[in-house]
Amino acid sequence: MTVLGIDPGYAIVGYAIVKYTGSKFTVVDYGTISTKSEWEFTDRLLHIYKRLEQIIGEHNIDAMAVEKLFFTTNQKTAMDVAHARGVIMLTARIRGAPVFEYTPLQVKQAVAGYGKAGKKQVTEMTKRLLSLKETPKPDDAADALAVAICHCFSSGSLLNKLRG
Amino acid sequence: MTVLGIDPGYAIVGYAIVKYTGSKFTVVDYGTISTKSEWEFTDRLLHIYKRLEQIIGEHNIDAMAVEKLFFTTNQKTAMDVAHARGVIMLTARIRGAPVFEYTPLQVKQAVAGYGKAGKKQVTEMTKRLLSLKETPKPDDAADALAVAICHCFSSGSLLNKLRG
Repeated sequence: MTVLGIDPGYAIVGYAIVKYTGSKFTVVDYGTISTKSEWEFTDRLLHIYKRLEQIIGEHNIDAMAVEKLFFTTNQKTAMDVAHARGVIMLTARIRGAPVFEYTPLQVKQAVAGYGKAGKKQVTEMTKRLLSLKETPKPDDAADALAVAICHCFSSGSLLNKLRG
Repeated sequence: MTVLGIDPGYAIVGYAIVKYTGSKFTVVDYGTISTKSEWEFTDRLLHIYKRLEQIIGEHNIDAMAVEKLFFTTNQKTAMDVAHARGVIMLTARIRGAPVFEYTPLQVKQAVAGYGKAGKKQVTEMTKRLLSLKETPKPDDAADALAVAICHCFSSGSLLNKLRG
Protein backbone atom coordinates (compact mmCIF):
# COMPACT_ATOMS: atom_id res chain seq x y z
CA MET A 1 0.00 0.00 0.00
CA THR A 2 1.34 3.43 -0.99
CA VAL A 3 0.01 6.34 1.05
CA LEU A 4 0.33 10.07 0.47
CA GLY A 5 0.30 11.82 3.84
CA ILE A 6 -0.60 15.51 3.88
CA ASP A 7 -0.21 18.27 6.46
CA PRO A 8 -2.54 20.88 4.94
CA GLY A 9 -1.84 24.60 4.62
CA TYR A 10 -1.80 27.39 2.04
CA ALA A 11 1.69 28.80 2.72
CA ILE A 12 3.30 25.39 3.29
CA VAL A 13 1.83 21.97 2.54
CA GLY A 14 3.75 19.02 4.01
CA TYR A 15 3.64 15.82 1.94
CA ALA A 16 5.03 12.31 2.35
CA ILE A 17 4.89 9.19 0.21
CA VAL A 18 5.16 6.08 2.37
CA LYS A 19 4.95 2.41 1.34
CA TYR A 20 3.66 -0.15 3.83
CA THR A 21 4.16 -3.79 2.91
CA GLY A 22 3.66 -6.55 5.46
CA SER A 23 4.46 -4.44 8.48
CA LYS A 24 7.48 -2.78 6.90
CA PHE A 25 7.64 0.90 6.01
CA THR A 26 9.58 2.40 3.11
CA VAL A 27 9.80 6.16 2.77
CA VAL A 28 9.65 7.02 -0.93
CA ASP A 29 9.69 10.81 -0.69
CA TYR A 30 8.77 13.68 1.57
CA GLY A 31 8.97 17.45 1.52
CA THR A 32 6.92 20.61 1.25
CA ILE A 33 5.01 22.63 -1.32
CA SER A 34 5.48 26.34 -0.65
CA THR A 35 3.61 29.38 -1.91
CA LYS A 36 4.52 33.03 -1.47
CA SER A 37 2.47 35.55 0.50
CA GLU A 38 2.76 38.11 -2.29
CA TRP A 39 0.98 35.79 -4.73
CA GLU A 40 -2.76 36.17 -5.26
CA PHE A 41 -4.59 33.66 -3.11
CA THR A 42 -6.05 31.75 -6.07
CA ASP A 43 -2.54 31.49 -7.56
CA ARG A 44 -1.43 29.85 -4.32
CA LEU A 45 -4.30 27.35 -4.67
CA LEU A 46 -3.36 26.70 -8.30
CA HIS A 47 0.30 26.09 -7.41
CA ILE A 48 -0.66 23.61 -4.67
CA TYR A 49 -2.97 21.80 -7.10
CA LYS A 50 -0.33 21.59 -9.84
CA ARG A 51 2.53 20.40 -7.60
CA LEU A 52 0.30 17.87 -5.88
CA GLU A 53 -0.96 16.57 -9.23
CA GLN A 54 2.67 16.11 -10.25
CA ILE A 55 3.53 14.26 -7.03
CA ILE A 56 0.46 11.99 -7.30
CA GLY A 57 1.25 11.39 -10.97
CA GLU A 58 4.79 10.23 -10.18
CA HIS A 59 3.70 7.69 -7.57
CA ASN A 60 0.92 5.16 -7.80
CA ILE A 61 -0.83 6.07 -4.56
CA ASP A 62 -3.58 3.95 -3.02
CA ALA A 63 -4.85 6.60 -0.64
CA MET A 64 -4.39 10.12 0.65
CA ALA A 65 -4.31 10.63 4.42
CA VAL A 66 -4.84 14.22 5.52
CA GLU A 67 -4.91 15.89 8.90
CA LYS A 68 -8.23 17.30 10.04
CA LEU A 69 -8.19 20.95 10.94
CA PHE A 70 -8.37 21.93 14.53
CA PHE A 71 -10.24 25.15 15.15
CA THR A 72 -8.23 28.19 16.06
CA THR A 73 -9.11 31.64 17.27
CA ASN A 74 -7.84 33.07 13.98
CA GLN A 75 -10.83 32.31 11.74
CA LYS A 76 -9.32 34.05 8.69
CA THR A 77 -6.29 31.74 8.73
CA ALA A 78 -8.46 28.70 9.45
CA MET A 79 -10.71 29.55 6.50
CA ASP A 80 -7.74 29.93 4.14
CA VAL A 81 -6.26 26.62 5.30
CA ALA A 82 -9.70 25.08 4.66
CA HIS A 83 -9.74 26.58 1.14
CA ALA A 84 -6.38 24.90 0.45
CA ARG A 85 -7.48 21.68 2.14
CA GLY A 86 -10.51 21.50 -0.17
CA VAL A 87 -8.19 21.81 -3.15
CA ILE A 88 -5.85 19.14 -1.74
CA MET A 89 -8.66 16.62 -1.22
CA LEU A 90 -10.10 17.37 -4.65
CA THR A 91 -6.74 16.73 -6.32
CA ALA A 92 -6.60 13.22 -4.85
CA ARG A 93 -10.20 12.51 -5.90
CA ILE A 94 -9.60 13.74 -9.48
CA ARG A 95 -6.77 11.19 -9.61
CA GLY A 96 -9.07 8.49 -8.21
CA ALA A 97 -7.42 8.15 -4.79
CA PRO A 98 -9.71 7.84 -1.75
CA VAL A 99 -9.15 10.40 1.00
CA PHE A 100 -8.95 9.55 4.71
CA GLU A 101 -9.02 12.16 7.44
CA TYR A 102 -7.40 11.93 10.86
CA THR A 103 -7.45 14.29 13.82
CA PRO A 104 -4.11 15.35 15.38
CA LEU A 105 -5.15 13.21 18.39
CA GLN A 106 -5.55 10.10 16.22
CA VAL A 107 -2.16 10.73 14.61
CA LYS A 108 -0.42 11.11 17.97
CA GLN A 109 -2.10 7.99 19.32
CA ALA A 110 -1.13 5.95 16.27
CA VAL A 111 2.47 7.11 16.11
CA ALA A 112 3.49 7.73 19.74
CA GLY A 113 0.98 5.51 21.53
CA TYR A 114 -0.89 8.24 23.36
CA GLY A 115 -2.80 11.36 22.41
CA LYS A 116 -0.97 13.81 24.64
CA ALA A 117 2.46 13.11 23.15
CA GLY A 118 4.50 16.24 22.39
CA LYS A 119 5.67 17.24 18.92
CA LYS A 120 9.25 16.09 19.64
CA GLN A 121 8.10 12.66 20.81
CA VAL A 122 5.91 12.20 17.73
CA THR A 123 8.75 13.22 15.41
CA GLU A 124 11.18 10.89 17.24
CA MET A 125 8.76 7.96 16.93
CA THR A 126 8.14 8.82 13.26
CA LYS A 127 11.87 8.67 12.62
CA ARG A 128 12.18 5.36 14.45
CA LEU A 129 9.13 3.70 12.83
CA LEU A 130 10.30 4.71 9.36
CA SER A 131 13.97 3.81 10.07
CA LEU A 132 15.08 7.27 9.00
CA LYS A 133 18.70 8.19 9.63
CA GLU A 134 17.91 11.83 10.26
CA THR A 135 15.07 13.61 12.01
CA PRO A 136 12.56 14.57 9.30
CA LYS A 137 12.37 18.33 8.65
CA PRO A 138 10.63 20.72 8.47
CA ASP A 139 7.70 20.13 10.87
CA ASP A 140 5.19 20.14 7.99
CA ALA A 141 6.96 17.23 6.28
CA ALA A 142 7.34 15.38 9.61
CA ASP A 143 3.59 15.83 10.23
CA ALA A 144 2.84 14.46 6.76
CA LEU A 145 4.97 11.36 7.48
CA ALA A 146 3.12 10.89 10.80
CA VAL A 147 -0.35 11.04 9.23
CA ALA A 148 0.78 8.56 6.56
CA ILE A 149 1.90 6.15 9.32
CA CYS A 150 -1.45 6.70 11.08
CA HIS A 151 -3.33 5.65 7.95
CA CYS A 152 -1.13 2.58 7.41
CA PHE A 153 -1.75 1.41 10.99
CA SER A 154 -5.49 2.19 10.80
CA SER A 155 -6.07 0.35 7.55
CA GLY A 156 -3.76 -2.44 8.74
CA SER A 157 -5.86 -3.01 11.85
CA LEU A 158 -9.01 -2.65 9.75
CA LEU A 159 -7.75 -5.43 7.46
CA ASN A 160 -6.92 -7.58 10.47
CA LYS A 161 -10.41 -7.01 11.83
CA LEU A 162 -11.95 -7.92 8.47
CA ARG A 163 -9.84 -11.09 8.41
CA GLY A 164 -11.17 -11.87 11.86
CA MET B 1 -17.87 41.15 -20.18
CA THR B 2 -19.22 37.74 -19.13
CA VAL B 3 -19.21 37.09 -15.39
CA LEU B 4 -19.84 33.88 -13.48
CA GLY B 5 -21.35 34.76 -10.11
CA ILE B 6 -21.11 32.17 -7.35
CA ASP B 7 -22.87 31.72 -4.01
CA PRO B 8 -20.55 29.13 -2.43
CA GLY B 9 -21.61 26.02 -0.51
CA TYR B 10 -21.08 22.27 -0.42
CA ALA B 11 -24.73 21.14 -0.39
CA ILE B 12 -25.92 23.81 -2.84
CA VAL B 13 -23.78 26.11 -5.00
CA GLY B 14 -25.65 28.97 -6.66
CA TYR B 15 -24.29 30.04 -10.05
CA ALA B 16 -25.18 32.73 -12.57
CA ILE B 17 -23.78 33.70 -15.96
CA VAL B 18 -24.38 37.38 -16.66
CA LYS B 19 -23.24 39.47 -19.63
CA TYR B 20 -22.64 43.18 -19.13
CA THR B 21 -22.20 45.24 -22.30
CA GLY B 22 -22.32 49.01 -22.22
CA SER B 23 -24.51 49.28 -19.17
CA LYS B 24 -26.90 46.57 -20.29
CA PHE B 25 -27.28 43.23 -18.56
CA THR B 26 -28.16 39.94 -20.24
CA VAL B 27 -28.78 36.87 -18.11
CA VAL B 28 -27.35 33.86 -19.94
CA ASP B 29 -28.05 31.18 -17.35
CA TYR B 30 -28.51 30.64 -13.64
CA GLY B 31 -29.22 27.75 -11.32
CA THR B 32 -27.72 25.53 -8.65
CA ILE B 33 -25.30 22.64 -8.31
CA SER B 34 -26.53 20.23 -5.63
CA THR B 35 -24.81 17.42 -3.80
CA LYS B 36 -26.34 14.83 -1.51
CA SER B 37 -25.62 14.55 2.20
CA GLU B 38 -25.18 10.78 1.92
CA TRP B 39 -22.27 11.20 -0.51
CA GLU B 40 -18.73 11.14 0.82
CA PHE B 41 -17.51 14.68 1.32
CA THR B 42 -14.77 14.41 -1.32
CA ASP B 43 -17.35 13.11 -3.82
CA ARG B 44 -19.36 16.26 -3.17
CA LEU B 45 -16.24 18.34 -3.91
CA LEU B 46 -15.59 16.34 -7.09
CA HIS B 47 -19.18 16.81 -8.28
CA ILE B 48 -19.00 20.60 -7.73
CA TYR B 49 -15.69 20.72 -9.61
CA LYS B 50 -17.02 18.71 -12.57
CA ARG B 51 -20.29 20.62 -12.94
CA LEU B 52 -18.55 23.96 -12.61
CA GLU B 53 -15.91 22.94 -15.16
CA GLN B 54 -18.76 22.09 -17.53
CA ILE B 55 -20.52 25.43 -16.94
CA ILE B 56 -17.28 27.39 -17.41
CA GLY B 57 -16.50 25.34 -20.53
CA GLU B 58 -19.86 26.20 -22.10
CA HIS B 59 -19.48 29.96 -21.61
CA ASN B 60 -16.49 32.12 -22.35
CA ILE B 61 -16.27 33.79 -18.93
CA ASP B 62 -14.03 36.77 -18.25
CA ALA B 63 -14.18 36.53 -14.48
CA MET B 64 -15.61 34.66 -11.52
CA ALA B 65 -17.20 36.71 -8.73
CA VAL B 66 -17.67 34.81 -5.49
CA GLU B 67 -19.16 35.77 -2.15
CA LYS B 68 -16.78 35.96 0.78
CA LEU B 69 -17.68 33.79 3.73
CA PHE B 70 -19.03 35.42 6.82
CA PHE B 71 -18.01 33.68 10.00
CA THR B 72 -20.66 31.70 11.81
CA THR B 73 -20.84 30.03 15.17
CA ASN B 74 -20.96 26.65 13.44
CA GLN B 75 -17.27 26.22 12.62
CA LYS B 76 -17.73 22.72 11.15
CA THR B 77 -20.18 24.02 8.55
CA ALA B 78 -18.03 27.09 7.88
CA MET B 79 -14.97 24.87 7.32
CA ASP B 80 -16.85 22.63 4.89
CA VAL B 81 -18.14 25.63 2.95
CA ALA B 82 -14.53 26.88 2.83
CA HIS B 83 -13.38 23.49 1.50
CA ALA B 84 -15.93 23.79 -1.32
CA ARG B 85 -15.09 27.46 -1.87
CA GLY B 86 -11.41 26.56 -2.36
CA VAL B 87 -12.45 24.03 -5.01
CA ILE B 88 -14.73 26.59 -6.70
CA MET B 89 -11.98 29.25 -6.92
CA LEU B 90 -9.47 26.67 -8.14
CA THR B 91 -11.79 25.56 -10.94
CA ALA B 92 -11.94 29.12 -12.29
CA ARG B 93 -8.16 29.51 -12.08
CA ILE B 94 -7.52 26.19 -13.87
CA ARG B 95 -9.68 27.58 -16.68
CA GLY B 96 -7.70 30.85 -16.64
CA ALA B 97 -10.47 33.07 -15.23
CA PRO B 98 -9.50 35.61 -12.55
CA VAL B 99 -11.45 35.38 -9.30
CA PHE B 100 -12.92 38.39 -7.48
CA GLU B 101 -14.30 38.22 -3.96
CA TYR B 102 -17.05 40.37 -2.48
CA THR B 103 -18.48 40.52 1.02
CA PRO B 104 -22.28 40.25 1.47
CA LEU B 105 -22.16 43.95 2.46
CA GLN B 106 -20.50 44.92 -0.84
CA VAL B 107 -23.07 42.90 -2.78
CA LYS B 108 -26.00 44.54 -0.97
CA GLN B 109 -24.51 47.99 -1.47
CA ALA B 110 -23.92 47.41 -5.16
CA VAL B 111 -27.34 45.90 -5.90
CA ALA B 112 -29.73 47.63 -3.48
CA GLY B 113 -27.79 50.82 -2.79
CA TYR B 114 -27.20 50.25 0.89
CA GLY B 115 -25.56 47.55 3.01
CA LYS B 116 -28.43 46.91 5.37
CA ALA B 117 -30.90 45.95 2.65
CA GLY B 118 -32.91 42.82 3.39
CA LYS B 119 -32.83 39.66 1.29
CA LYS B 120 -36.20 40.45 -0.33
CA GLN B 121 -35.08 43.93 -1.34
CA VAL B 122 -31.84 42.62 -2.84
CA THR B 123 -33.70 39.93 -4.80
CA GLU B 124 -36.25 42.48 -6.03
CA MET B 125 -33.49 44.84 -7.19
CA THR B 126 -31.65 41.93 -8.82
CA LYS B 127 -34.81 41.05 -10.77
CA ARG B 128 -35.28 44.67 -11.82
CA LEU B 129 -31.64 45.33 -12.80
CA LEU B 130 -31.54 42.15 -14.88
CA SER B 131 -35.02 42.74 -16.38
CA LEU B 132 -36.13 39.27 -15.29
CA LYS B 133 -39.81 38.44 -15.69
CA GLU B 134 -39.87 36.26 -12.61
CA THR B 135 -38.23 36.49 -9.20
CA PRO B 136 -35.03 34.40 -9.40
CA LYS B 137 -35.19 31.18 -7.34
CA PRO B 138 -33.88 29.54 -5.24
CA ASP B 139 -32.04 31.98 -2.93
CA ASP B 140 -28.65 30.50 -3.85
CA ALA B 141 -29.18 31.30 -7.54
CA ALA B 142 -30.53 34.78 -6.67
CA ASP B 143 -27.41 35.42 -4.56
CA ALA B 144 -25.20 34.29 -7.44
CA LEU B 145 -26.95 36.75 -9.77
CA ALA B 146 -26.46 39.53 -7.19
CA VAL B 147 -22.72 38.91 -6.80
CA ALA B 148 -22.36 38.87 -10.61
CA ILE B 149 -24.07 42.30 -10.77
CA CYS B 150 -21.78 43.53 -7.98
CA HIS B 151 -18.71 42.56 -10.01
CA CYS B 152 -20.05 44.17 -13.19
CA PHE B 153 -20.67 47.45 -11.36
CA SER B 154 -17.31 47.31 -9.53
CA SER B 155 -15.25 46.65 -12.63
CA GLY B 156 -17.37 49.14 -14.54
CA SER B 157 -16.55 51.89 -12.06
CA LEU B 158 -12.93 50.70 -12.00
CA LEU B 159 -12.76 51.10 -15.80
CA ASN B 160 -14.34 54.55 -15.51
CA LYS B 161 -11.76 55.48 -12.89
CA LEU B 162 -8.92 54.23 -15.10
CA ARG B 163 -10.35 56.24 -17.99
CA GLY B 164 -10.38 59.29 -15.69
